[in-house]
Amino acid sequence: MKAWLDTTLKALNLVDTMEQPNGFTRLGYSKEELASMDVFREVAEELGLSVRKDHAGNLMARWEGETNQVVLTGSHLDTVENGGGYDGVAGVLCSLGAVKALKESGFKPHHSIEVVCFASEESARFGVSTIGSKSVAGIFDKSVENVRDRHGTSIREAVESTGLEWSSIGQAERPQDEILSFIELHIEQGTQIEDHGAGFGIVRGVACPIRLKVKVEGMAGHTGTTPMGKRTDALVALAPLITFVSKEAERLSNESTKPLVATVSTLDMKPNVMNVIPGYAEAGIDIRSVDDVLKKSMANKIIEQCRNLENEFNVTIKLETLVDNSSILLDEELTAKVKAAGERLGYKTYEMDSGAGHDVMNMAAKWPSALVFIPCEKGISHHPMEHSTLDDLYAGVKILAEVIQQEAGE
Amino acid sequence: MKAWLDTTLKALNLVDTMEQPNGFTRLGYSKEELASMDVFREVAEELGLSVRKDHAGNLMARWEGETNQVVLTGSHLDTVENGGGYDGVAGVLCSLGAVKALKESGFKPHHSIEVVCFASEESARFGVSTIGSKSVAGIFDKSVENVRDRHGTSIREAVESTGLEWSSIGQAERPQDEILSFIELHIEQGTQIEDHGAGFGIVRGVACPIRLKVKVEGMAGHTGTTPMGKRTDALVALAPLITFVSKEAERLSNESTKPLVATVSTLDMKPNVMNVIPGYAEAGIDIRSVDDVLKKSMANKIIEQCRNLENEFNVTIKLETLVDNSSILLDEELTAKVKAAGERLGYKTYEMDSGAGHDVMNMAAKWPSALVFIPCEKGISHHPMEHSTLDDLYAGVKILAEVIQQEAGE
Repeated sequence: MKAWLDTTLKALNLVDTMEQPNGFTRLGYSKEELASMDVFREVAEELGLSVRKDHAGNLMARWEGETNQVVLTGSHLDTVENGGGYDGVAGVLCSLGAVKALKESGFKPHHSIEVVCFASEESARFGVSTIGSKSVAGIFDKSVENVRDRHGTSIREAVESTGLEWSSIGQAERPQDEILSFIELHIEQGTQIEDHGAGFGIVRGVACPIRLKVKVEGMAGHTGTTPMGKRTDALVALAPLITFVSKEAERLSNESTKPLVATVSTLDMKPNVMNVIPGYAEAGIDIRSVDDVLKKSMANKIIEQCRNLENEFNVTIKLETLVDNSSILLDEELTAKVKAAGERLGYKTYEMDSGAGHDVMNMAAKWPSALVFIPCEKGISHHPMEHSTLDDLYAGVKILAEVIQQEAGE
Repeated sequence: MKAWLDTTLKALNLVDTMEQPNGFTRLGYSKEELASMDVFREVAEELGLSVRKDHAGNLMARWEGETNQVVLTGSHLDTVENGGGYDGVAGVLCSLGAVKALKESGFKPHHSIEVVCFASEESARFGVSTIGSKSVAGIFDKSVENVRDRHGTSIREAVESTGLEWSSIGQAERPQDEILSFIELHIEQGTQIEDHGAGFGIVRGVACPIRLKVKVEGMAGHTGTTPMGKRTDALVALAPLITFVSKEAERLSNESTKPLVATVSTLDMKPNVMNVIPGYAEAGIDIRSVDDVLKKSMANKIIEQCRNLENEFNVTIKLETLVDNSSILLDEELTAKVKAAGERLGYKTYEMDSGAGHDVMNMAAKWPSALVFIPCEKGISHHPMEHSTLDDLYAGVKILAEVIQQEAGE
């Protein structure tokens, strides 16, 4: 199984070695994501599963049971730019591995089992995340149609470039009574499992972000001829906000029982040339905590700080809330079953919250859902150095197989 | 003359009205710069001048005198992105206007007169400024050949796309004894003329910049899963430097007899996406003063501050000096003649330094050179709202005509 995991991991990542200095770039609805999905199709068919693509570009590999009801498991294959080879892939791989293990053990499913590759989980390309799983859950908002990537391609164009029809993406939704449960495995992207000496993590809740766009309008001017006292430099007005977000998030997090994180993660300037004072600067801020009140409080402090900076620097600051989603609690019963299954296999579990969004948060809106974390080295993620060991992937396979057997059995 | 100035101003700017909300974009060696130069050629030929293009893409419009020695005047037609319609154009326009005025007055030049449009004065496209005038002065460094614009086009490719040959660009150099003097008119891009109640400015020296690139290497990571205390955020490490540069430049400038300006004018991040902590941030800093010691002192303070930030935020900061040019003093005798000419015409003059670089700084390395400033409204420049009045342009025409008559006469 470990040799198969190693081979299949590389195959799904479209590489011969996981040592990739520039990491992995498979943006949502790109030809690279499709190429990885093609590998998924081959591997699943070798395992005897029948694979279909739905109207949102998700792939579903099915092991037919005695009933039409489905135990669903899987994750995604897209990545951020220059990301790692485990985020998403680990879940798809372990789900396939669990099916392989169950087949080899002679298991005959009562309910059907499906392994899913959700399309375009990352928000890296369009700033819109989990398009595939939102579509399956029937909560994808098609009004984002004309949101464009940095090359000017709209979501709609990207979706249609893969051979899908934008108008029928809603048909990817599945009826509530067709799916019994959804279990996703993912790398932790943090160090809590390791910090607590555990073997894997079992997730109680997913911290969904508040995302703000801060648009600072100053006044451009020649860098050589505008005296310091006569400037309205948008970047100079924005700089203290970057420091504020970092310091205030650390303070609030330390004072609270639930952690909070906040990041100025994007910054774009105009005109961004050497001899012109920045007339315009735009920052994207990502705030997360499973404690929605704490998260909201951080957002309010940022808004208040923007008003202060407006006065101090004589700029205009416009604020836009891109995303404000409440945190998601996962299914207590299914989560308890996953935890028990892991413990039966001899692993120490750690109950935790997820700071990152995952496909499971959309599935949880409609079906009993659970999320399993396996450790990743030093918590490094969205980075070429992202790494999980084969032992941890193998443990993930065993846990998923144990739970799926229980859920899909008679 | 004023109607001609108005019409020709718009023609050189390729517009029907100077009210352009997005300003003017004619980058160096672009088809837009060439289109503007085509208009220059037409206007110059209408005035009876013979126009030639040199090996660097500069246009020279010649009024043949009795000798082959040349009194040269002019400026440039390229702009920054979304810049104004007067920076550069005002100088070319007033030089043409001066020739028109002299022709109409029946003046017969003893020495030849040439109006020049220097190619690619702005550094907006490649970070390399005054390519045309450097070539004429024989100080263009061809090692920048492979410097690329944001679309990946190299300087060499851009130059050759206009029909020139990179290998022969050096042939644009003109012998020392061929040119008697060079006089450039430019908009002030500041408010000192206005602040001192003067009609025009006469420039003693040009403050050439020190330009630094600051490269901050932190560690990328998932914004949702990396606790605040475990981050190495490149942008958070860079933010205090933005504030420092602004405050320290203001302090040093206030304490000194000569002004100093410093600007963090460019900022680029990787990966610059919503859900990844900035792992890398790169800032460009532009420092200017005619006081080279003061300028160097500011650069050293920035370098020192970078070392402090490295320690405080546990990042690696690499520094690169892109440009470090000593300030240029203009020709005292020629400058005195320009001042006297303006005063004879009844204008109050203000002697000042230039915070911006201009083509004249390259010409001054080889020939007696002078720089005249006309006011521009509120000092706004490199911006769509950049504006000089027709009265000020007309005053510029009269001053240039007066000086050229004196220099090119018997």
